[in-house]
Parts: sequence; C-alpha cells; structure tokens
Amino acid sequence: MIDTAGLEAELHKFADARDWHQYHTPKNLAMALSVEVAELVEIFQWHTPAQANAVMRSDEARHVEQELADIAMYLVRLSMVLGVDLNRAVAEKLVMNAQKYPAPQA
Amino acid sequence: MIDTAGLEAELHKFADARDWHQYHTPKNLAMALSVEVAELVEIFQWHTPAQANAVMRSDEARHVEQELADIAMYLVRLSMVLGVDLNRAVAEKLVMNAQKYPAPQA
Amino acid sequence: MIDTAGLEAELHKFADARDWHQYHTPKNLAMALSVEVAELVEIFQWHTPAQANAVMRSDEARHVEQELADIAMYLVRLSMVLGVDLNRAVAEKLVMNAQKYPAPQA
Amino acid sequence: MIDTAGLEAELHKFADARDWHQYHTPKNLAMALSVEVAELVEIFQWHTPAQANAVMRSDEARHVEQELADIAMYLVRLSMVLGVDLNRAVAEKLVMNAQKYPAPQA
Repeated sequence: MIDTAGLEAELHKFADARDWHQYHTPKNLAMALSVEVAELVEIFQWHTPAQANAVMRSDEARHVEQELADIAMYLVRLSMVLGVDLNRAVAEKLVMNAQKYPAPQA
Repeated sequence: MIDTAGLEAELHKFADARDWHQYHTPKNLAMALSVEVAELVEIFQWHTPAQANAVMRSDEARHVEQELADIAMYLVRLSMVLGVDLNRAVAEKLVMNAQKYPAPQA
Repeated sequence: MIDTAGLEAELHKFADARDWHQYHTPKNLAMALSVEVAELVEIFQWHTPAQANAVMRSDEARHVEQELADIAMYLVRLSMVLGVDLNRAVAEKLVMNAQKYPAPQA
Repeated sequence: MIDTAGLEAELHKFADARDWHQYHTPKNLAMALSVEVAELVEIFQWHTPAQANAVMRSDEARHVEQELADIAMYLVRLSMVLGVDLNRAVAEKLVMNAQKYPAPQA
C-alpha cells in the first residue's frame, strides 16, 4: 500500500544530526502535523471551487507540493516515534472502510 | 523516499465504486485531511507528556493507528487529485530543509 | 468590541467544580480549540458552496450552533488562563488590520 | 455570557469597505478559522509544558494576543454570516455540558 522506509531513514538521520529527538514527542508532532495541514488549507481558503481545482496550474503549485511534502514528513515521523507500521495500519483501515461503506452493487 | 502506488490504486478504485469522485475536490479533501488530523490531536489533547509517550501501550493504541491511516489515505488521495508526485515533492523538500536548517558540524 | 466577563465566570466555576484546572494548560487548551474548530469544519467538508450557505436551514443547524459555542468557550477559557484581555487584543488587531489592508477610496 | 455586538458591527463595516462579503462564505470562514487556530498552535508546538505556561512572559506574548484576536474575529464573523446568536448558543451549550459532565458532590 505505502512504503515509507526510505523516508523514515532520512528523517531519523535528519533529527539525529540536529539533536531534535527531544522535541519529537508524540504530542508535539501531532501539533506540528496539524499546523502543516493548516498551511495547506490556507492556500485554498478563499478559492472558489474552480480556483482550487486549477491550483496546480497557478503560481501556487510549488507551494502546494511543499506543504504536501511537509505533511508526509510529519506523518511518517510521528508514525516512527509511535512505533506504528503505517502500511499495516492503512491495509487494516481499508478493510474497515470497505465494511463501513459497502459499494452499491452494479 | 515514499512509494504510494499501491494505496493510490486502492483509493481510486474505492472512490470509483462509490461514485465519490464528485466530492473529492482539492478544497474538500484539504478540509477532510485537517479533520482527520484533529481526530488524532484529540487523543493527545489532555495527556501529560508521559501519557502521550505511552499511548501505544494504552487502550487507545488501535485508535491512534486508525487515525494515522486515515491521514495517510487523505494525503495520498489529495496528492493524486492534484496530480502531485508525492515522492518527488518529499525529495525536493528534504533538500530545502537541509539548506534551511544546516546541521552543526561534529 | 467583545465582552466575555459573564462567560469567563461561568467557565471558571465549571472547571473549579470538576477539578479541571490541572488539564487547562495553554498547550492543552490550544489543542482542544483546534479540535473543536475541526468539528465545525467537518460539517462543511463535503458541502457544495450552496449546501454550506443553507446549513442553518438544514437539520445540522443545532450542531453548527453547538460547535460555535464550544469554540467560543475554549477561546475564552484559553484567554483567561493566559491572562489575555481579549477585548483589548481585538481592538488592537482591528487597528493593525486597517493599516495592513487599507480600504479603497470611494 | 458573551456580548459581540460591537465587534460584529466593526467586522461588517470592515468587510463592506473592502468588498469582502463575496469571500466570507460559511465554508471559507470555517477554513480561515481553522488556519488562525493553527497559527496559535504553532506557537506552542515545540514548547515544554513549562515554556507554554510562561508564554505571556516571553517575547511571543504579543503574537499570542494577535492570534487570539484573529480567532475571535473569525468566530464572530462566521456566526454573523450564519445568523447564529452566539450568546444564546453558548448559554444553551453550558446547560448541555453541565448535564453531560455532572459535578461531583461536595
């Protein structure tokens, strides 16, 4: 489903080199993740639906990519710190969602 | 860094079978992503740092995994809808971060 | 601008009677405030603009009111705990905003 | 409980003078409110509990006040746009909360 091994290794090395492990507690990383998502929401907040749909053809395209990357990094970092296997968690949640929202029959 | 191809295919099929593409606009998905992150933050909001650090040994462990999975799913879905290559975006952001926060020399 | 004295007194009494002051730290209350706002955002996340505009004539009207009330309560509670005079802060921010976003001349 | 009449009048006049009513839809204002709360959360995200508790004696005190003011302004603006009487909503929610969380007897 999702393979984050390469990113996990990079993020660990990055935090190590800067002595940042002390800040990367679950509570702090959850807050940081919410802040990064809000920076993405901010890009869209005054957009009409049409403007939002065209954002990747606007001069905000790079900014959108950077915010998505930040969210991915904090999500993977938080999962690591908690010892969660994100791929397994996703696989299990997909099964739960399929049961919760059954597809209409063709 | 991060490989999301399997999850992308699953999410596309899931939305397809339920006729959900109409709801999965960038603006709506950004909002949904922020809501899922808040459901994770909610788990930690009244925790002491020690309680937050021990959450995966508490009876909220499964709940934490489910919220992390939901965040991963909306992040990957939003990236797909926007046509963003999340792996490339992450690789570029890591380079930017290394320049912005230089590691102290040993 | 805004008078919150009555609500402050109620919230203090409420926390007092339940021995909740220990939980009401600035960091925790900031997280709780973000969670309440997300519960409001959740109501609107899949709405078209037209549906969102008509929400107070839908069966979610009471739910919207309750979430707005929760946000007001956590905002006032956090301001109290921090010792911030919210009315003064608002008055000063309005002056700043008027300078930052000058109105076009008639 | 809470009196927002003065602020409502100011915010209406402010939006009027800048032709901003078109942007101030319920969906957009809910997003903007979540973004402002995240700007407050950002101040606290890497703080220890002790640092967070001392924030109003730090050089971030004014920043905290400004973010609280922004949140108050978007909350009141959104309530106005929705036609919600925030004072009544708060009074009703306090009654609900007292029933949901009964105080222990002395």
